[in-house]
Amino acid sequence: MGENQDGSRDEVAIRVLVEDWASAVRRKDFPGILRNHSSNLLMFDVTPPFQSKGIDAYKKTWDLFFSWAHEPVVFDIKEMSITAGSDVAFVTAALQCSGREASGEDIELDFRLTIGLRKINDQWIIIHEHHSIPATQ
Amino acid sequence: MGENQDGSRDEVAIRVLVEDWASAVRRKDFPGILRNHSSNLLMFDVTPPFQSKGIDAYKKTWDLFFSWAHEPVVFDIKEMSITAGSDVAFVTAALQCSGREASGEDIELDFRLTIGLRKINDQWIIIHEHHSIPATQ
Repeated sequence: MGENQDGSRDEVAIRVLVEDWASAVRRKDFPGILRNHSSNLLMFDVTPPFQSKGIDAYKKTWDLFFSWAHEPVVFDIKEMSITAGSDVAFVTAALQCSGREASGEDIELDFRLTIGLRKINDQWIIIHEHHSIPATQ
Repeated sequence: MGENQDGSRDEVAIRVLVEDWASAVRRKDFPGILRNHSSNLLMFDVTPPFQSKGIDAYKKTWDLFFSWAHEPVVFDIKEMSITAGSDVAFVTAALQCSGREASGEDIELDFRLTIGLRKINDQWIIIHEHHSIPATQ
């Protein structure tokens, strides 16, 4: 296969991986959420803490999310762009979720997402996620 | 050169690029800030808008930053990790800046940064930045 065809194959593989992950979030399926993640993942989440290092800390960020999110869970990819090299890749995306604030208010939340991946043994693995909303202050 | 040596060479090149960029921010040196950026850059900034597409919109985010930032400008890299492939790379970092809020309060602000790069004609180019703070609400 030529370079471009490999590039396209990698992009397709990463698109499927991210869509499967988002689908697992909607099902609250933890094994599915964690399936393609490194044990050393670095997470920057929408809410505190400032950063979460390692897969156990990453899993806790989902406990927090599910305690806030509406049921059925909304976690929709609105826009996604993939930049895939031969062994490292990143994804930029805009997503929407919905949940209930501490104030009792129900909101739809648009957020930005960047994902960093590395190919290990011919398999793309997520080693970084950065979720955020613009600061309103 | 072997694969590891190339990888190390790329990591060093990217570290220098990011440190030079941060130094240009501290000098308010716009040509330096924009030197290694793609015309199609996608920016997710700490403050609104939700996203900025293209180098002109990216430049405007710096006008906003400098209108807030103290002089001399604080823009310090506290922690940085580089994942470099042969043609795509990303950087994760924790930084600190300082400025005056609309309320008149002077603050130090710790923020998270992810940078996405692609190697074009043997030169690393920034095609994505994602700056954020955890939402406090």
